Amino acid sequence: MYDLIIIGAGPAGITAAVYAARKRMNFVVITNDIGGQAAWSGDIENYTGYQFVTGPDLVSKFEEHMKKFNVSVKEGEPVADIKKNGDIITVKTNKGEYEARVIIIASGKISRELGVPGEKEFKNKGLTYCATCDAPLFSGKDVAIIGGGNSALDAALQLIKIAGKVYMINIASQLGGDAIMREKVMANSKVKVFNNSQVASISGGKMVTSIKVRQEGKEREIPVGGVFVEAGLSPNSGFAKAVEMNEGGEIKVNCRNETSVPGIFAAGDVTNVPEKQIIIAAGEGSKAALSAFRYLSQKR
Amino acid sequence: MYDLIIIGAGPAGITAAVYAARKRMNFVVITNDIGGQAAWSGDIENYTGYQFVTGPDLVSKFEEHMKKFNVSVKEGEPVADIKKNGDIITVKTNKGEYEARVIIIASGKISRELGVPGEKEFKNKGLTYCATCDAPLFSGKDVAIIGGGNSALDAALQLIKIAGKVYMINIASQLGGDAIMREKVMANSKVKVFNNSQVASISGGKMVTSIKVRQEGKEREIPVGGVFVEAGLSPNSGFAKAVEMNEGGEIKVNCRNETSVPGIFAAGDVTNVPEKQIIIAAGEGSKAALSAFRYLSQKR
Repeated sequence: MYDLIIIGAGPAGITAAVYAARKRMNFVVITNDIGGQAAWSGDIENYTGYQFVTGPDLVSKFEEHMKKFNVSVKEGEPVADIKKNGDIITVKTNKGEYEARVIIIASGKISRELGVPGEKEFKNKGLTYCATCDAPLFSGKDVAIIGGGNSALDAALQLIKIAGKVYMINIASQLGGDAIMREKVMANSKVKVFNNSQVASISGGKMVTSIKVRQEGKEREIPVGGVFVEAGLSPNSGFAKAVEMNEGGEIKVNCRNETSVPGIFAAGDVTNVPEKQIIIAAGEGSKAALSAFRYLSQKR
Repeated sequence: MYDLIIIGAGPAGITAAVYAARKRMNFVVITNDIGGQAAWSGDIENYTGYQFVTGPDLVSKFEEHMKKFNVSVKEGEPVADIKKNGDIITVKTNKGEYEARVIIIASGKISRELGVPGEKEFKNKGLTYCATCDAPLFSGKDVAIIGGGNSALDAALQLIKIAGKVYMINIASQLGGDAIMREKVMANSKVKVFNNSQVASISGGKMVTSIKVRQEGKEREIPVGGVFVEAGLSPNSGFAKAVEMNEGGEIKVNCRNETSVPGIFAAGDVTNVPEKQIIIAAGEGSKAALSAFRYLSQKR
């Protein structure tokens, strides 16, 4: 029986763990992985205090910070369900059940799938959802990025250095995201942007060899050796049916990180916090841990 | 005429500046100082990504980060008033007036005074509000810390290394703050804590020589060569009468950092955000900048 269970170990979950440790709470972190989406980021220039750091490097620093406090972390344990009975909250994973008096859900977001023919077939056969993890495998190859926001731009900035041609398939009429990233991408002659466009299908043999792109009613085939899906993210909240969510599946929280169920707090990208940023998620994690600590103190 | 004026350059204001710069906004930062309360902190162990950093070091990193973007900073300019007329917001300082279409108030907190005889007289003559700035001047001297929360503990941890005896004058029945800091302080034989106690007056000649402490109806004189006032902080919001505040003078914001006046946003310790922490202020600064950017985009 723990005081606290933290679900997730991205920037929100790790920061919550640092704060819980400093409050000497008896707690455990249960998570799929360490770092969440932050680990998949390329160059990060807006985490205050680090002018420039890569996603994997920042995540290493976060992980070391958490582990300094001898935090108990159960990695590779996706959560299947949470339930509250009386004052006790039960967290069920693929390996067992854990009990606590409060929990913090900081399970982040997961990549959204395109839902087009060929996507499932070519996953990990030239099609990937993580540019940071996989870009180095596409040296000299022509590639397509599906998306037009910050994560697509981030993928483009990584691929420019490695790949051949870089096609961006953007559903909107122009690229979104931060001006500073957009300008860097558009200034590069390797990049060709298809606006008002969607991927219709993905084809190949053993590996991806082409995509079909629909633009203003017309379809064209583009030969590519790699497809990077950056079509947005969905909240990883499927297991959290016990709490209220918005239409997008984000867990509703107030400014104190309280959900609709007393004793269940949430923080970071899985919530309806209006912006998804590493520094914001970290701040929310801290706030959730302090709220959880106060909740327990008042119960005692 | 700016897009945006940011008031304050602590963790919230600096992070807002980094985000505004990346969005290529036309803006200026107007501030008393760089770093705010963070610059006065001793050892920081809960800014995720830095296992251990001093306040001044973290502030240097923040400042370098902001200056990388060639941000225009007007330092040493306390703001006297803000006014909104139509769509234009005017910020009046001791040196002039500035106009913008949106502003972010991130002016933080300032030290609360004790209001006891001798306080004004001995300010900077042995009495200080900043342990980090001044502790090194008290080498070998017996000192008193007025307060019992995290900032008092932080001052104690700094003074243990430098001063002679360290008296803590705590109004509550026991020390507050983080367990991890409290344990370190209480384990040190130099420290003597007076609980349920208040300072009645401060005495001396050219410099402080003693304080009078009232404990459970009794008064006693304690000879000290230094007094560190760590009696809490007040929001630095006196110039912001244009927006709604709570009873404590904190600017009321919603989760999007909107104040009661459209176009005026606020972030960090000057607001009613439930916890005052560097990592939280930084996250709030990012959120405020993105909200301000969105507000302007929708206006255009």
